[in-house]
Amino acid sequence: SLSGLSPSCLLLSRSSLSASPLSLSLLWSSRELELASVFVSDAQYNRNIFFDTSPRAVRLYLLYHRWFLKVLLYFFILVNLSLAVFEEPAVFPLPLWATMMVELLCLLAFSFRLVHYAKVIPPDKFWKDPKNICIIVILMLTLVDMIIYGALKATNYYALRWSRVLRPLLLVNVTEGRQLRRAFRSIRNALPQIFYVFLLFMFSVLIFSLMALKLLGKRGLQTIDGAPYFTHYLEIVFDLYVLVTTANSPDVMMPAYNASFVFAIFFIVYILINTYIFMSVFLAVVYNNYKKYLKEEVRQLVRAKRHKMVRAFAVLQEVREEGGEPVVTQANWNQVVRLVRPNIDNAHRELLWSVCDDKNQGKAAFVQLADLLNIEVITLKSRPHPFHSLCPALYLSAPSRLLSRMVHHRAFVIVYDIIILVNAIFIGLDEENPMIANSEWVFLALYLLEILLKLYVFEPRTFFSRHSFWNWFDIIIVVSALIATIINSAVKICDRQILDIVFILRVLRLIRVVDSIERFRAIINTLIRIGPAILTFGQLIVVVYYVFAMVGMELFKGKVKFYEEDSTDPAKAYCGNPLLRGTAFAQLNYCKNNFNNVVSSFILLVELTVVNQCSGFATVTHVSARIFFFIFHILVVIVIINIFVAFVLEAFFVEYSVDKSDLHTSVERKITELELALDSFFSLLSSLLSGYRTVDALLQRMFEADLDPEDLAEDDSPEAQTGRNFGNPTFSSV
Amino acid sequence: SLSGLSPSCLLLSRSSLSASPLSLSLLWSSRELELASVFVSDAQYNRNIFFDTSPRAVRLYLLYHRWFLKVLLYFFILVNLSLAVFEEPAVFPLPLWATMMVELLCLLAFSFRLVHYAKVIPPDKFWKDPKNICIIVILMLTLVDMIIYGALKATNYYALRWSRVLRPLLLVNVTEGRQLRRAFRSIRNALPQIFYVFLLFMFSVLIFSLMALKLLGKRGLQTIDGAPYFTHYLEIVFDLYVLVTTANSPDVMMPAYNASFVFAIFFIVYILINTYIFMSVFLAVVYNNYKKYLKEEVRQLVRAKRHKMVRAFAVLQEVREEGGEPVVTQANWNQVVRLVRPNIDNAHRELLWSVCDDKNQGKAAFVQLADLLNIEVITLKSRPHPFHSLCPALYLSAPSRLLSRMVHHRAFVIVYDIIILVNAIFIGLDEENPMIANSEWVFLALYLLEILLKLYVFEPRTFFSRHSFWNWFDIIIVVSALIATIINSAVKICDRQILDIVFILRVLRLIRVVDSIERFRAIINTLIRIGPAILTFGQLIVVVYYVFAMVGMELFKGKVKFYEEDSTDPAKAYCGNPLLRGTAFAQLNYCKNNFNNVVSSFILLVELTVVNQCSGFATVTHVSARIFFFIFHILVVIVIINIFVAFVLEAFFVEYSVDKSDLHTSVERKITELELALDSFFSLLSSLLSGYRTVDALLQRMFEADLDPEDLAEDDSPEAQTGRNFGNPTFSSV
Repeated sequence: SLSGLSPSCLLLSRSSLSASPLSLSLLWSSRELELASVFVSDAQYNRNIFFDTSPRAVRLYLLYHRWFLKVLLYFFILVNLSLAVFEEPAVFPLPLWATMMVELLCLLAFSFRLVHYAKVIPPDKFWKDPKNICIIVILMLTLVDMIIYGALKATNYYALRWSRVLRPLLLVNVTEGRQLRRAFRSIRNALPQIFYVFLLFMFSVLIFSLMALKLLGKRGLQTIDGAPYFTHYLEIVFDLYVLVTTANSPDVMMPAYNASFVFAIFFIVYILINTYIFMSVFLAVVYNNYKKYLKEEVRQLVRAKRHKMVRAFAVLQEVREEGGEPVVTQANWNQVVRLVRPNIDNAHRELLWSVCDDKNQGKAAFVQLADLLNIEVITLKSRPHPFHSLCPALYLSAPSRLLSRMVHHRAFVIVYDIIILVNAIFIGLDEENPMIANSEWVFLALYLLEILLKLYVFEPRTFFSRHSFWNWFDIIIVVSALIATIINSAVKICDRQILDIVFILRVLRLIRVVDSIERFRAIINTLIRIGPAILTFGQLIVVVYYVFAMVGMELFKGKVKFYEEDSTDPAKAYCGNPLLRGTAFAQLNYCKNNFNNVVSSFILLVELTVVNQCSGFATVTHVSARIFFFIFHILVVIVIINIFVAFVLEAFFVEYSVDKSDLHTSVERKITELELALDSFFSLLSSLLSGYRTVDALLQRMFEADLDPEDLAEDDSPEAQTGRNFGNPTFSSV
Repeated sequence: SLSGLSPSCLLLSRSSLSASPLSLSLLWSSRELELASVFVSDAQYNRNIFFDTSPRAVRLYLLYHRWFLKVLLYFFILVNLSLAVFEEPAVFPLPLWATMMVELLCLLAFSFRLVHYAKVIPPDKFWKDPKNICIIVILMLTLVDMIIYGALKATNYYALRWSRVLRPLLLVNVTEGRQLRRAFRSIRNALPQIFYVFLLFMFSVLIFSLMALKLLGKRGLQTIDGAPYFTHYLEIVFDLYVLVTTANSPDVMMPAYNASFVFAIFFIVYILINTYIFMSVFLAVVYNNYKKYLKEEVRQLVRAKRHKMVRAFAVLQEVREEGGEPVVTQANWNQVVRLVRPNIDNAHRELLWSVCDDKNQGKAAFVQLADLLNIEVITLKSRPHPFHSLCPALYLSAPSRLLSRMVHHRAFVIVYDIIILVNAIFIGLDEENPMIANSEWVFLALYLLEILLKLYVFEPRTFFSRHSFWNWFDIIIVVSALIATIINSAVKICDRQILDIVFILRVLRLIRVVDSIERFRAIINTLIRIGPAILTFGQLIVVVYYVFAMVGMELFKGKVKFYEEDSTDPAKAYCGNPLLRGTAFAQLNYCKNNFNNVVSSFILLVELTVVNQCSGFATVTHVSARIFFFIFHILVVIVIINIFVAFVLEAFFVEYSVDKSDLHTSVERKITELELALDSFFSLLSSLLSGYRTVDALLQRMFEADLDPEDLAEDDSPEAQTGRNFGNPTFSSV
């Protein structure tokens, strides 16, 4: 919504301003207001780009943040990453020239984006930023690799597309993926600490392995496969490392345990120390580092935000009386707020102004604007229902009022919860029974009735407001289910895929029941709130998976083959590789767990994240292939998953323990005051959610309690400004 | 050490007192000093028993805390618990009358302990304490069960020894296991919160199962065993629940994934939500509750401690001048400290007094005594080496001094680290090679030489001080290895068991190498410091395992049989139960994972904690047996393991972040002052460790930063005292 600072929008707000009788004081040029609004929105979204303040650069900067350019960028990144689906080894093979052309197009798009960025910020800043250097290097390397690969392929030589490993780095660097870069930074920062614990952990594994070798190696024990048990040191090390991931428990222990129960004690001590204690210590170290560095980053974020707001203030300020404090007039304030949030409600804007105004109109109040804009205020005007205006007699009649009371009643919710539960039982029953199949229509009708009743009773705009998650959920699920069910009965030939969609939609409908239980709603809301941050970790995982998938495909492609269920090829029994004959890998039918294309690679990597089953690949290539799986486990399970757990822990603590911020409190107090002042029927009924619009705001809240007062104090002395290289404010007040 | 308040010791201190020229002020009777010292030591060890203050009760109370009675109690508890080894189904069968007699003896011992306790505290307090009621009920029930069981067995009826489930509760209630009871309380307190998250989690599992049934049930897929795949709802629920524990990953997914890779997405989403997000939320909820309630408990602990110190002060106080503040004289103070810690060093005691004295001699200073006694102060008197006194000419000769410098040198440590590493390689090599076998003697000689050199250079009492963990470790390991190796070569017939011990000792010796690396030492020290608390969790786990082992043995004993390696019984292939023929359980040779005796039950339960493999037992009894494993998993993995992780997390944060307490600082400052004041060669060289003597002290430090000032403020108004029912202080000053 912020990116919508289009020139037309600017014109609109200027025209509405000139008509306003309030604009008595000095008004700034649109260029100055634009600059101020850019500072404010940068502060609001915690953008940290030191753009040039020349008018041309500001226009380009605004363009740089336009939503369609961002979407286009993500689109090209997605295309670039998904090229792996079409390249050798492909899921859907495309000729080499086609994928090459698409990749070139992507590279071109990234170069354009980079050039655009270079025009926005001063050249010295551009070349100092490692991010940009990184992009340029990746683009160059990719180009070189494409040329070499193309040339080698054209002359039928063996060629390796090694630059594919670099692709996910573009996701990190080209996009303004600040969250993602921060996650990477917290990994980098935690690494030294993790490293020492890891060394100790490995030392412990090595010592236990040596002990196992001495205790068990000479006893002539055998594994189930009949192989000698615990006779080779490095094999033992690997087996015991896998035991930490719990993947081969209790198999690895059974031969020794069968020989004597005393050996079970060895394994129990091993699991206690290495699985439970060391893994907890890893989590503790990661969590501790994560907290420490995140706090530091948030502190810098808060400082940068204040600096930007101070610069915006410097642009807008005027001295009203001789020797007085500089202030920003309401008219200018309104202008800037309209530029930053074009779709802001008047009531909401007035509320924010009155919160600011309460303190004073000086810098201290203005600086809060960025945070104020991040507080979600929902203005619920108690508008009359459209039917009330259209046909008041009917809408206010006794039956209509009764209906309204019914829908508002608690029993209405309970009745529908029971209907959902009954529906769940019906879904569980055999759908080929015609009675059951037809009952689906009844349930669909009931759900539709519920939605219609609610639409009749509740004001539609309130019902469809952005925050009514469950209303939207209901309508989308019920309407899609209706459409899918109709198509399904129309097609008659029972198309499995449509039926699958129908089933999924039917089952998803049941989720609604959790919303009616207060306790569940609180947990779900927390989960929804930390959802966007979880997506950041999703990106992180995709980056790591992509790199490992590319390397894995080069190392293992074609080594393990999957044969369809109806295949009669005898090679099916050993996944098409004689080396796997008789191994547990083939017996357990794991043939589809291979690196033959990017999709199966990703699925295999997910499996490896859950439990590290990889013996098959060591069999078909070389024992050293285990190093690949070992590194993957360390990086994903010990580092990334622990950072993820640390994040969830911290987010839940914040939800449980942190109170509302001061700013929240003052906005709420103001809302109450306004409600008291205007006690007419159509008064402003604003309700405040404790939600946050951005992940950064959540993070800031997480560490707000820990921030030093000096971080929140003003720090706009000239030294501080020049020290931080804030450029020369060409637009500042005359 | 505290329990050593024997009458002889009292006499000794009184006689030494009467000889002291310092004892000018009014001296209290031994009874009063005794009472005061009991209050102080109760405060120091955070004991919370409201004992009667009559002289007889105080004597009994002192007896109650004597170490030999406690050891006896633990011995009887151990005997009572280990009866399971000898009872049906037994590891070493004993006749019924023998186990019954032993159990009766144990019950008698517990009854004695309880009667002793009843004599110490006022009757109304005794009957109000649920702990005592619990013990009485358990004793009664056990007696009733024993009678019924004996009668039924005598008449050859089927009988069930159900009261064995209650045995571990005695470990919780009979002992003064405050840590253990606290761990149980934190579980109980966390349960409501966990319960709601658990319901939501189960709801999610149920919804996913329903979706799986609809999507996969009708496709005619098969598992590897050829069984129909995902056709029965409750089976799916169980399979998906097991997937959360990652035990059956990726097997449960393979049939669907082999059919189409789209279904893999279903499983990935499932694992993401239920394994990663929900398990993190469980940890977050448990951790949050753990912190909250522990903080509350520590607050109460601190309050109770202050109250006890105030009572001790009330006994000892005297008003020196008219209208002045009441004080405790140094003589009385010394008496009490000697009673509380009979083996305290004079230097240490003087140090503590000077810390107290610095502030004033009033109540505020006295109240700190309990905490001061908990600070570990090691008085390292730089005594001359015994050789120095015996033969100074030789000991101070040039070669001797050179030797001393060598041993002190950093290179000495490095040389021995290299020796250890070379030794590690030799251990790894084949010990049947005579060269390698003989090299062991060289290494042993080298290690012995190291110890002798150190004993020559360092003062023995310093070398063997209680805190020199690694010195003790070295000597014990090296000497045992020497003895075992000598026995091993003497016996000649290579006895496997002695050889095993030799091997273990050899490998353990290698651990010493971590001590030379600073970073590792820090981590290891933290682990050693939280060791005692981890033992508390060990007890907790034993209690839970014991209960489940008892129930499991009743449910599953004899269902799965283990045949020795050399058995030719055809039933060996299916663990002696035809129902297991061809199952994965039998194929993987899991037959020894059974409930046939208490040892194998415990080992099986450990395995279940790591990964929940239990399909075998559901096969041999009934599908509902899964409920047993399901409850076990919830209780142990979701609740207890998470509390354990929470504890380790918190302990590491404390180690990382909390600074020394104020009291620590003032003791350290005082040490520095004393060092400056007495700058002679034999001055007091006290060094302060940041160690804590008790778990409670660690806990208090953990939450010290969070405690409200009012918790630390004095709260000894009459209302507060009577409100807390501190009884009538019969001994208080005349």
